[in-house]
Amino acid sequence: MIIQLEKNIRTDHYQALIQQLEKIGYQYTAVQTQVQNYLVAIGNASFDIRSIGSLQGVKDLHRVSDDYKLVSSKWKVQASQIDLGEGIKIGRGQFQIMAGPCSIEGEKQIFETVQHLVKNNVKVMRGGVYKPRSSPYSFRGLGIDGLKSFYKACKSEGIKIITEVMQMDQIEPMYEYVDIFQVGARNAQNFNLLDALGAVDKPVMLKRGISGTINELLQAAEYVFSSGNEKILLCERGIRSFEGSYRNTLDLNAVPILKDKSHLPVIVDPSHGIGIRKHVERMALAAVLAGADGLIVEVHQEPEKAFSDGQQTLSFQEANELYSHINQTVAFRDKLYS
Amino acid sequence: MIIQLEKNIRTDHYQALIQQLEKIGYQYTAVQTQVQNYLVAIGNASFDIRSIGSLQGVKDLHRVSDDYKLVSSKWKVQASQIDLGEGIKIGRGQFQIMAGPCSIEGEKQIFETVQHLVKNNVKVMRGGVYKPRSSPYSFRGLGIDGLKSFYKACKSEGIKIITEVMQMDQIEPMYEYVDIFQVGARNAQNFNLLDALGAVDKPVMLKRGISGTINELLQAAEYVFSSGNEKILLCERGIRSFEGSYRNTLDLNAVPILKDKSHLPVIVDPSHGIGIRKHVERMALAAVLAGADGLIVEVHQEPEKAFSDGQQTLSFQEANELYSHINQTVAFRDKLYS
Amino acid sequence: MIIQLEKNIRTDHYQALIQQLEKIGYQYTAVQTQVQNYLVAIGNASFDIRSIGSLQGVKDLHRVSDDYKLVSSKWKVQASQIDLGEGIKIGRGQFQIMAGPCSIEGEKQIFETVQHLVKNNVKVMRGGVYKPRSSPYSFRGLGIDGLKSFYKACKSEGIKIITEVMQMDQIEPMYEYVDIFQVGARNAQNFNLLDALGAVDKPVMLKRGISGTINELLQAAEYVFSSGNEKILLCERGIRSFEGSYRNTLDLNAVPILKDKSHLPVIVDPSHGIGIRKHVERMALAAVLAGADGLIVEVHQEPEKAFSDGQQTLSFQEANELYSHINQTVAFRDKLYS
Amino acid sequence: MIIQLEKNIRTDHYQALIQQLEKIGYQYTAVQTQVQNYLVAIGNASFDIRSIGSLQGVKDLHRVSDDYKLVSSKWKVQASQIDLGEGIKIGRGQFQIMAGPCSIEGEKQIFETVQHLVKNNVKVMRGGVYKPRSSPYSFRGLGIDGLKSFYKACKSEGIKIITEVMQMDQIEPMYEYVDIFQVGARNAQNFNLLDALGAVDKPVMLKRGISGTINELLQAAEYVFSSGNEKILLCERGIRSFEGSYRNTLDLNAVPILKDKSHLPVIVDPSHGIGIRKHVERMALAAVLAGADGLIVEVHQEPEKAFSDGQQTLSFQEANELYSHINQTVAFRDKLYS
Repeated sequence: MIIQLEKNIRTDHYQALIQQLEKIGYQYTAVQTQVQNYLVAIGNASFDIRSIGSLQGVKDLHRVSDDYKLVSSKWKVQASQIDLGEGIKIGRGQFQIMAGPCSIEGEKQIFETVQHLVKNNVKVMRGGVYKPRSSPYSFRGLGIDGLKSFYKACKSEGIKIITEVMQMDQIEPMYEYVDIFQVGARNAQNFNLLDALGAVDKPVMLKRGISGTINELLQAAEYVFSSGNEKILLCERGIRSFEGSYRNTLDLNAVPILKDKSHLPVIVDPSHGIGIRKHVERMALAAVLAGADGLIVEVHQEPEKAFSDGQQTLSFQEANELYSHINQTVAFRDKLYS
Repeated sequence: MIIQLEKNIRTDHYQALIQQLEKIGYQYTAVQTQVQNYLVAIGNASFDIRSIGSLQGVKDLHRVSDDYKLVSSKWKVQASQIDLGEGIKIGRGQFQIMAGPCSIEGEKQIFETVQHLVKNNVKVMRGGVYKPRSSPYSFRGLGIDGLKSFYKACKSEGIKIITEVMQMDQIEPMYEYVDIFQVGARNAQNFNLLDALGAVDKPVMLKRGISGTINELLQAAEYVFSSGNEKILLCERGIRSFEGSYRNTLDLNAVPILKDKSHLPVIVDPSHGIGIRKHVERMALAAVLAGADGLIVEVHQEPEKAFSDGQQTLSFQEANELYSHINQTVAFRDKLYS
Repeated sequence: MIIQLEKNIRTDHYQALIQQLEKIGYQYTAVQTQVQNYLVAIGNASFDIRSIGSLQGVKDLHRVSDDYKLVSSKWKVQASQIDLGEGIKIGRGQFQIMAGPCSIEGEKQIFETVQHLVKNNVKVMRGGVYKPRSSPYSFRGLGIDGLKSFYKACKSEGIKIITEVMQMDQIEPMYEYVDIFQVGARNAQNFNLLDALGAVDKPVMLKRGISGTINELLQAAEYVFSSGNEKILLCERGIRSFEGSYRNTLDLNAVPILKDKSHLPVIVDPSHGIGIRKHVERMALAAVLAGADGLIVEVHQEPEKAFSDGQQTLSFQEANELYSHINQTVAFRDKLYS
Repeated sequence: MIIQLEKNIRTDHYQALIQQLEKIGYQYTAVQTQVQNYLVAIGNASFDIRSIGSLQGVKDLHRVSDDYKLVSSKWKVQASQIDLGEGIKIGRGQFQIMAGPCSIEGEKQIFETVQHLVKNNVKVMRGGVYKPRSSPYSFRGLGIDGLKSFYKACKSEGIKIITEVMQMDQIEPMYEYVDIFQVGARNAQNFNLLDALGAVDKPVMLKRGISGTINELLQAAEYVFSSGNEKILLCERGIRSFEGSYRNTLDLNAVPILKDKSHLPVIVDPSHGIGIRKHVERMALAAVLAGADGLIVEVHQEPEKAFSDGQQTLSFQEANELYSHINQTVAFRDKLYS
């Protein structure tokens, strides 16, 4: 059960509410986000909903039987929208392409990529400065200095930045330079990191775990939301399966399912989702018709020289056509369902 | 290596060719399809390709390093097309919707479905008369009598029939009434059945196994082709994974991969692929942009009363819109890539 | 619900029973095995069990809520035992090793293997004469002639034969020469084959599907049982997973689960289950302590020259030690749980 | 390639070595553990191994082609052993049982568990004080205060403590009270945490990821080792699969594979590995014969009242028999392979 509270609920009203919850044997968690105050109450007993709903200080009340509560569409029917500023929005009918290299490699690369994005009217740039790598001997990213260069180049052009945060203590130094914090697939259940991102007032994009269930992804989002941050994007990036003829199994089923179960926007990563450059476009366009609110794709000025993920990265020239085809497909979808 | 032979290769030329293959240490299989004669030769030794290619009776010769040979796009670059007659074709730019109930349940149902398909200009009807069921106590289909009713109703309206064959000895009695023999996911590696369908001159649609690899699907097709039947459709219908919030994991990655690796048309089954009625359309349209040559969907006059698969089956009314959206999406795709 | 009937139930008593089942809205299937007569009745309505149980001709009655019925341990608490004759039994405390090559390759091989088994007191020989192969160009076995040689060599030494049947019409010609019909993983849901084996009065070993669930394996067994054959062995042989450092993921969890849910004996195949020769013994012994009633392992006089599966096949010398270790482990287990 | 350096290698010798590596085009990482100094060098060029091996300051040199290097058995043939002090060792023939509750719940529980372990001569107690939970609303553990109580009770009885660390900044406050830091399955690729544990001089047990590959587990260990800590235990705890009749698929294949590929000890967790109380013993004993160096099992004074994981937790009485059977099985194994 989610109880939306009046913003300035009186202490005695709050106490009365708590007492009533205890009386019916419900456990509750107080959630204060940047937007609103809630009580998330969990229990099994049946009771007269009016005994809570009619109390003073209670704005609204919703029964939510899912394991996740605040991210469920059962109480918040309208789709959420993430506002990145300068008119750049994601969700509730607003679609965004995010593009850029797997890893930030240097100033020249950043500059060329920004030019490429500006030319194509792409508003969000991706690029890792902290790279989770299976082997400790692989390139692990340029770190905070790389991020500062990234920021400097994007800022002046109005390009927003999405980049991965791997560790709680990176959040503060990164904060100023980041528009969307990305949590990678390997940290999908790093609950301390999720809690910490709940305290931040910038959007967070949660990648589904390597073999994370849809339910787990939504519960990860519940961590962030219940810690205070309502600005959450969900990202399908392919799951691990037995099939070996591509990198990951892009689970496009997850798109309509997530959009049905939750009010949060859904982003698809076709680059990791299939992992083969020549097939990225097909999966990108399929994702749009499956219902995605955005796409995140890997592009590089010279994919064959990329520090990482070159085999799934498009050249700028290939990407030019991809963006055009994505935009046409979004327009087609809008018309089909208008 | 695939060696295409002259249709009427002289016996002495054939013997010389065989001798040359033996000389270079290659094992060979003679393949005689309804279209052409081949020798499929397998070996590791390097040799001068001209020592075979220049022999009399050899029309053409292709090195194919894949596990599958005759179904590979490495030797047959042009996409194959299946011709069902009366102008109904699949592949090489021709798209078909196949629709109908999971199980054929009776004459009234067949009649109403045929009317529904005619109204929507759908040319192929699906419907099972032999049903593979996990439990021996479940309804197993109406059998050959059901098929005869099915045929009678479709014949007069020019609707083609696709239905599942489970067992070698069903092929002959079914033959007259079937336009496409479907091999189900549970029989994906029933090699005797595949061999037997190679002897038939009607198209065969192979569903990918419950957790079949793409390579195994192509090798199943190789069984049919090498036994003599070149008319093969591949079908992606979802794979088994750890995810429990839908029925199967529709692997749309498989579509561009299959179309890249093979010359055979690819059909997608979004009904089994997600297994939830309200999400079938999204996955159907996504499949079109992923590159599918056709879709097979479950529809029923009263899904909630269907003998099987009701939860993933669309009503006629829902299907009317689905067909229209599919057709618009195919047209959009054709324009995008024209 | 399983209703055990008196062997010679009177027709009027049977009719009364049927009428009562129809009255309470239950669907029923009459099952006549080589051992006993049953009615398997399925329905949801609650009713007074005595209204059935007290009828004449009813020997016993059991509620079974599982998807499978006759193979469930819910009605048949005592473990089943398979009797191969000449004192060779499997299940209910009797353990058997089955060993032999992947494929029967010729008389010399058969002869040497039989000698090896006799020397080690192994009573059941495995060996394929019909081989399911992913590629149509691979060796597919010596067929019925190979089986006859196999039989001839084993008969005189009192060795029992287990071999794979792939297709309904192979059953009859194979029948005379086979002691246990094996259904392979690829035919785990070939329901026509399962039905046909239900009509046979020789034991059947069902391998779990490539990615078959435990529930599906038990329902496959239900097919055989409900078609008349109670002599069934279940076989865990590894499932398909994402892990690539071995051939299959041997699911030893399945052993205690199957033995808990069903009364049928459970065999484990460590050779396919890990697929790496040097690790077969470890998994074989682990399987014994997990509760297996038997093991099936691949051995060959010269593994590196085997027609198939050489990498997972033990030499005779390696196998000598394996058998000894298995027998010691079985003895240890018997003592531990005596 | 792993280059073992003399403990006090002279600076000029080190420079000469570095220069030689650069000359042959190898990238290198200097690794200084609590035990020894290494250079891990990675490259493709072939070169005369003597050109490095003969340099001054080089103690030994090993080619290791695996993705992981320092944890590979290719250079360190002798099995590693973890010494917990007071004669308690794991690996190289020393077997340990670790037992205790899923979560530390209070002083009474700790006290009773310690008594139970002492009585059974179990030397290591498990118990979580930081609990990774899918839902933010679940019990997340007693934290550092719980750990202090845990420590106080164990210290006096000579019981060693293994408990999970979820986050870098927990390491320091936990350090004094912990004998083995456990990294949970959800943090299996939390590379910052792994790096940080490399700086600690206490043993670390790495659980395999929810669907982590064996290769990834070994690379996670490589993170810890290459950051300075050689005291590593690997733990198989079941992987995620399609099978739903138990909690996880215990992958006992991983045991012989890990012990073959690596010199590190391997622990098995049968409690999470099957997740059903009555089947834990079977899987525990199977793990011993598969080659495990230790077991970690969940026990609780009243499993049905446990805060978490009750369904897979044994009562003290059940555990008494389990320990006895484990010890007998270890003795049987030692004799079998002596």
